[in-house]
Amino acid sequence: MSLNTYGHLFRVTTWGESHGPALGATVDGCPPGVALEEAMLQHWLDRRKPGQNKYTTQRREPDAVRILSGVYEGRTTGTPIQLMIENTDQRSKDYGDIAQKFRPGHADITYHQKYGLRDPRGGGRSSARETAARVAAGGVARAALKMLAPEVRITGYMVQMGRLKADRDRFDMAEVEQNPFWCPDATAAAIWVEHLDELRKSGNSVGAVVEVMASGVPAGLGAPVYGKLDTDLAAAMMSINAVKGVEIGAGMAAAELTGVENADEIFMGNDGRPRFSSNHAGGILGGISTGQDVVVRFAVKPTSSILTPRKTITVAGEEAEIITKGRHDPCVGIRAVPVGEAMMACVILDHLLLDRGQTGGQRGAIG
Amino acid sequence: MSLNTYGHLFRVTTWGESHGPALGATVDGCPPGVALEEAMLQHWLDRRKPGQNKYTTQRREPDAVRILSGVYEGRTTGTPIQLMIENTDQRSKDYGDIAQKFRPGHADITYHQKYGLRDPRGGGRSSARETAARVAAGGVARAALKMLAPEVRITGYMVQMGRLKADRDRFDMAEVEQNPFWCPDATAAAIWVEHLDELRKSGNSVGAVVEVMASGVPAGLGAPVYGKLDTDLAAAMMSINAVKGVEIGAGMAAAELTGVENADEIFMGNDGRPRFSSNHAGGILGGISTGQDVVVRFAVKPTSSILTPRKTITVAGEEAEIITKGRHDPCVGIRAVPVGEAMMACVILDHLLLDRGQTGGQRGAIG
Amino acid sequence: MSLNTYGHLFRVTTWGESHGPALGATVDGCPPGVALEEAMLQHWLDRRKPGQNKYTTQRREPDAVRILSGVYEGRTTGTPIQLMIENTDQRSKDYGDIAQKFRPGHADITYHQKYGLRDPRGGGRSSARETAARVAAGGVARAALKMLAPEVRITGYMVQMGRLKADRDRFDMAEVEQNPFWCPDATAAAIWVEHLDELRKSGNSVGAVVEVMASGVPAGLGAPVYGKLDTDLAAAMMSINAVKGVEIGAGMAAAELTGVENADEIFMGNDGRPRFSSNHAGGILGGISTGQDVVVRFAVKPTSSILTPRKTITVAGEEAEIITKGRHDPCVGIRAVPVGEAMMACVILDHLLLDRGQTGGQRGAIG
Amino acid sequence: MSLNTYGHLFRVTTWGESHGPALGATVDGCPPGVALEEAMLQHWLDRRKPGQNKYTTQRREPDAVRILSGVYEGRTTGTPIQLMIENTDQRSKDYGDIAQKFRPGHADITYHQKYGLRDPRGGGRSSARETAARVAAGGVARAALKMLAPEVRITGYMVQMGRLKADRDRFDMAEVEQNPFWCPDATAAAIWVEHLDELRKSGNSVGAVVEVMASGVPAGLGAPVYGKLDTDLAAAMMSINAVKGVEIGAGMAAAELTGVENADEIFMGNDGRPRFSSNHAGGILGGISTGQDVVVRFAVKPTSSILTPRKTITVAGEEAEIITKGRHDPCVGIRAVPVGEAMMACVILDHLLLDRGQTGGQRGAIG
Repeated sequence: MSLNTYGHLFRVTTWGESHGPALGATVDGCPPGVALEEAMLQHWLDRRKPGQNKYTTQRREPDAVRILSGVYEGRTTGTPIQLMIENTDQRSKDYGDIAQKFRPGHADITYHQKYGLRDPRGGGRSSARETAARVAAGGVARAALKMLAPEVRITGYMVQMGRLKADRDRFDMAEVEQNPFWCPDATAAAIWVEHLDELRKSGNSVGAVVEVMASGVPAGLGAPVYGKLDTDLAAAMMSINAVKGVEIGAGMAAAELTGVENADEIFMGNDGRPRFSSNHAGGILGGISTGQDVVVRFAVKPTSSILTPRKTITVAGEEAEIITKGRHDPCVGIRAVPVGEAMMACVILDHLLLDRGQTGGQRGAIG
Repeated sequence: MSLNTYGHLFRVTTWGESHGPALGATVDGCPPGVALEEAMLQHWLDRRKPGQNKYTTQRREPDAVRILSGVYEGRTTGTPIQLMIENTDQRSKDYGDIAQKFRPGHADITYHQKYGLRDPRGGGRSSARETAARVAAGGVARAALKMLAPEVRITGYMVQMGRLKADRDRFDMAEVEQNPFWCPDATAAAIWVEHLDELRKSGNSVGAVVEVMASGVPAGLGAPVYGKLDTDLAAAMMSINAVKGVEIGAGMAAAELTGVENADEIFMGNDGRPRFSSNHAGGILGGISTGQDVVVRFAVKPTSSILTPRKTITVAGEEAEIITKGRHDPCVGIRAVPVGEAMMACVILDHLLLDRGQTGGQRGAIG
Repeated sequence: MSLNTYGHLFRVTTWGESHGPALGATVDGCPPGVALEEAMLQHWLDRRKPGQNKYTTQRREPDAVRILSGVYEGRTTGTPIQLMIENTDQRSKDYGDIAQKFRPGHADITYHQKYGLRDPRGGGRSSARETAARVAAGGVARAALKMLAPEVRITGYMVQMGRLKADRDRFDMAEVEQNPFWCPDATAAAIWVEHLDELRKSGNSVGAVVEVMASGVPAGLGAPVYGKLDTDLAAAMMSINAVKGVEIGAGMAAAELTGVENADEIFMGNDGRPRFSSNHAGGILGGISTGQDVVVRFAVKPTSSILTPRKTITVAGEEAEIITKGRHDPCVGIRAVPVGEAMMACVILDHLLLDRGQTGGQRGAIG
Repeated sequence: MSLNTYGHLFRVTTWGESHGPALGATVDGCPPGVALEEAMLQHWLDRRKPGQNKYTTQRREPDAVRILSGVYEGRTTGTPIQLMIENTDQRSKDYGDIAQKFRPGHADITYHQKYGLRDPRGGGRSSARETAARVAAGGVARAALKMLAPEVRITGYMVQMGRLKADRDRFDMAEVEQNPFWCPDATAAAIWVEHLDELRKSGNSVGAVVEVMASGVPAGLGAPVYGKLDTDLAAAMMSINAVKGVEIGAGMAAAELTGVENADEIFMGNDGRPRFSSNHAGGILGGISTGQDVVVRFAVKPTSSILTPRKTITVAGEEAEIITKGRHDPCVGIRAVPVGEAMMACVILDHLLLDRGQTGGQRGAIG
């Protein structure tokens, strides 16, 4: 993690502002020979694309991604892959208000304090638009995983909106693609629709919890003690705009468990691999994957750009009120789902390469 | 974060195993001219030292730290600082049981799966003993902060043990040093004493939540989008043994807030600096510090080394039961408090240097 | 140095192939507030541009650089700067011969051996076209240096072509811009014209030595022992295509000196700063700048793409002969001059930021 | 390369000063399962050890290396390996003269200018004693190579002392261990003996050129464009104390070649691998190994600590003369031979791991 770069061997640098000519991701260290074309990345970008329903910003961006380098005749060459998405719907509106006032809960004030200047157009670099670049890079990671570890499956979904939690007993993964919230609990999704409509109409917004699960992850990915798989996952998820908490497995609730409860007991599976009675560990022990599902959750705070007036100050230091008009998501958590998936894909691939580098990917056999 | 190294400019590499001859930290990139002597580091190590009361492991280690390099006549020279702590109380007991069986919830199995071999003595590299090296390194960071940003104050404390939460209305920071849990709520601490005694006697263990607060942190530390201050804090805390969740400010509860509630409204303070009505952000917006208190919380799972028998398998793949005798903390969260403080100190200093490198540390004035 | 990324704090990742749609550089970590516009970068790119005289490739590329991010209203914002140069003159010729045969002395064979596939069009990633991206990034570095260390001056020039060396007694820096070789010795340049004409006509090519000098570099840049200023300069120059040797100050000839000869004796200058009797050190002692001119030289091998037939093998493993038709520089050393300057600018700026981060840029006074 | 750390995946951080209690190397990222014990490292350290003949410093250091971590029952565990060498012969002499005056050609003045303070005892961090730590780390790299690429052979030797060059026509590698200069030309070695005796007696010193050759390096190591194998080798060698120039293959002389001469023509070998008519490339094309011998040369300047008086200034800014008494090598190039070998071993191993990470180490077949 080096300012705008993420990853050890599979390294992603995102660049670009909300209202500049373009944004994108520079992907370095991708394995050679991976089948890759723009349509494969577009598939993932379309899931995150704004303006798809009334719960996401009405900005109209095709988010068409172009591969400018690193691919020859449909295969990665092992050299840097440049992914570019042009911005097309930067409305020629007046940004004077945002340029002069700091939105509470927004990066406006800290960018000003750090850099002394900022690009106020649509939030500039701090806009959630930056996450489009991550989704594109995540598409590259998925393509590489398809070649190197085809059994890996990554699925993200919302498990909570505001105080309303989905019920795990009702989870049906087939439902995830059937509602605008990527929620595996259809009943909860129906309730959320009403709740969010109400919030949106009242000029308010709301937070959410997203869970991302990776199954088929081989045992042995990760490393002590700062290169832990969960360390990198925590960093990856916390780096997403508006995220304020990250959990692995039992997460914060692990504090409530006793050692007896927390122990995921181990048995031998019929396939000669260890089998566990439970997964409080979220698939990671000592920073290294166990072969169980890797489970990460993160909380997304409510959009700070709201229609309800809030107290703030101006660049000149005067007290003021601000209302943020414009096209904002009432629940940014929704569009964080594909972003979380992308980060998971990048981290898993990166650790797969890192492990292959150090150990050759040879697993210590049991039995 | 590169396997065992943490930090961008202030870089800490920890090394060593629980039962090897020594462990320590290699600290590179420390500013020159910092007043530093062993006693200053020992102060922090003594807080984390095992065997201080019946709630921590009875292993007797003086944890005496030696500075082997990088300091001349009581001042850092800007060259690498090697901190070494010799292990003295490695009991010559038989580790055969742990060597052959994997403790559920422990790194035993994943180290075996990844590396094909492991040092089973006391958990080897995955032992919480590694955190002594972090505390020593954190002491260096504190000394440097004292010179560069003397207003920074870092305080860690436990806010939850098992299901028992401390009550923020009763918080009195003067109490933190008065009970074995570093708990600012004296009433809660008294209850925890009983709870933990019971658990310990029953051969069980329990999780905890630790909070670390840094006040006096200048605005402007951190950077988009992977070098965010909260990204690095999340990584730092998640890298501590047994941590399963990390929160900044409102944390996971941010999901429950509306945008109206979450907005930390901004006013001008009498000192010409912005003042906020609340701190849901935990002192960080857009990955950059606001000048408010930086607030991080993390959940520590219960020790997996317990006296209650659990099902597991052997290296040979046979099913078995395991009881972990020996000297183990019934609540490792307690000793995680000084570790969390150390990580906070390292991250804050690192970002101070990083910011000074890029921007010269000149803050964009308001007003 | 991480595959395609260079630098510690001022980090440059170049991307793109010779005949892809575009190439460029992702520049991260630039200080905020630097005056920057495309024309400033174009100035440097135009110096390197192909097709300017008969001694450089006849490919016609405008090499027009676009700034896609990181600049707002003519100032850098501290966020990543994406520099893109579109390729326009990729001739639709048949690359079959190069695709099937490996040019001796060229990266064709090693890319094949490493990656199993390669983009053969114009050399793909290994083409010297990649250096256009470095020159663009170097332009950003120069703009930042102008703000932070305006006294720094960087000048590159050729000092040798084949066996013909320029004569330092005839050096006149005003001549550098007056001949196609950036040679400060006008007499040598005139001789080189004839020599190169002859070589070119005979279907041959020739090597060269380039020197890059940075004056006005403050004392104190660099660090022990792998972050030395000369270590990073050596890496930077060696990373340029076709470079086979790098020298600092006396360079390889330092081997011939005695300690008495080599000692750059020190005196106090009238300006209160140390003054040296000579500069065998090339401005660097112990990896740290002395305040003298920083002097680097590097040897560029002759272009391997020549019209004289050479023995080689095919991808199928059959022996063959190869002639490389096309538009190739008879002396690639010429266009390496602005590239070397760009690398010098990047390294100096990077170390300026790095030093400011660690030490605050406060110099130990003498006297 | 990050201040005192070298390498991408096999990362070495050296620490320690000439006259501190100890110095050493923290080695992270070593593959697990490598057979390693102290005696294996001692073998290499003994080659570099001071005081072995009259041409090296008379300081008496056993340079006994201890492995403090990362090895269990004679095998590396994949966790950090701490190598410590205690300093035993720090003479209690008065360093006042060196503490107050800057030796010309030495890091004294730049450490002062950068850090504002320095450890003057024996040169502190800038002492060539630091290279003992590299040799120890190189021993770990050699042990890992023995497991992963047993065909790799690394040999260093001196090819020039002052103006006296060894004659390649007389090279006999069996001679390397037979003379105090590791010179494969016995005739030259005999001449050097006289030359160096004379210099030593006159209180002078002299430079040298060292060549390091690695045979058996698999094709495909390295990467464009900043992760080139030659880029990292240049950095590694230039980071050694007193080195002023680095060459790969033909090196600086590549400038004198024509394209026709420089082309290493390619044929198919009987073993189904490419065979080359010559090796001007030094085993590296486009930054990636060809499978030929990797050949690096570097120039070591003469020791700046000499008995002949030289002009200098004091910390107080007064002009003065300095003579460096004490135990100094008349030709530090001699002891640079094992250091160069160690750096070669580290770089080759690092790139082996890096390549295995990205490509899986599968080579593109020819034929």
